[in-house]
Amino acid sequence: MTQLYLIRHGIAAEAADYSDDQKRPLTEKGRQKTEQVAQKLLQKGIQFDLILTSPLVRAVSTAVILMDVGLSKKVQEFAPLAPEGNLETWVNWWNQSGYNNKDSSLALVGHQPDLGNWSEVLVWGKTQEKLIVKKAGVIGLNILDKTAPIGNCELFLLTSPKWLL
Amino acid sequence: MTQLYLIRHGIAAEAADYSDDQKRPLTEKGRQKTEQVAQKLLQKGIQFDLILTSPLVRAVSTAVILMDVGLSKKVQEFAPLAPEGNLETWVNWWNQSGYNNKDSSLALVGHQPDLGNWSEVLVWGKTQEKLIVKKAGVIGLNILDKTAPIGNCELFLLTSPKWLL
Repeated sequence: MTQLYLIRHGIAAEAADYSDDQKRPLTEKGRQKTEQVAQKLLQKGIQFDLILTSPLVRAVSTAVILMDVGLSKKVQEFAPLAPEGNLETWVNWWNQSGYNNKDSSLALVGHQPDLGNWSEVLVWGKTQEKLIVKKAGVIGLNILDKTAPIGNCELFLLTSPKWLL
Repeated sequence: MTQLYLIRHGIAAEAADYSDDQKRPLTEKGRQKTEQVAQKLLQKGIQFDLILTSPLVRAVSTAVILMDVGLSKKVQEFAPLAPEGNLETWVNWWNQSGYNNKDSSLALVGHQPDLGNWSEVLVWGKTQEKLIVKKAGVIGLNILDKTAPIGNCELFLLTSPKWLL
């Protein structure tokens, strides 16, 4: 089974306090909650072959927390995961990644509403913006057709930290 | 906010051991896991104004466990929640239920693939059978338009017991 986990960054500092949105860090509470979510995923036996993350600070910090608890040995910044990034770019990457021809488990760390939209497109072929994804929330998809993931995934998990902790 | 929780019955005795599928009881493990899920929902502050359940034994037992842990004071059998039941019948009930004109929280206890299909229709207007709903798994929807729920719900939770426990 090939699985894709889409994970939203944790609670970050207020936008009003940072002139550059890209540099907003996680708050202390955001770090703690993200680490608790990560520990829960680890407890359940989850391992990621790779974590791709939006290059924004709040996403990179989230990805590093996931790696630090032991969920993966590899984190890589991936520009299309920044806000308003393009799913097609990810699909092109996927098709050449080497993860597309074996059982694998990847995590994508990014932002809303993109992660919800990407998930809907991967599962249903288009988005209606109907998924609620809270900060440090997790979406889990099975990729049924590894050669053509769009419209060919199943949804097995959608949760906010509330239900995991 | 008006919320709808769709909950699949717990692990039941093998079909081969019961000539009447409607009478298959929960196994001991099924009862335990269902009770753990129910306790977790209670811990998170969930209360149901009403639990509607499929009349099949494994569903009724699941609903009674939810009530017994304190999630609701009311359980009612509802024939359209039996396998291959009709969502329109539920919508007709809803429209006359009195729950449709206030904030409320209802649980529907039933079977797969119906619960997944109903959820997809409530959220996206049609089903592609893309939701994985395990035994004692939980789906959580916000009903955005109480006068016309079909296609007007958001998905905020989809989980198997694995992630809750």
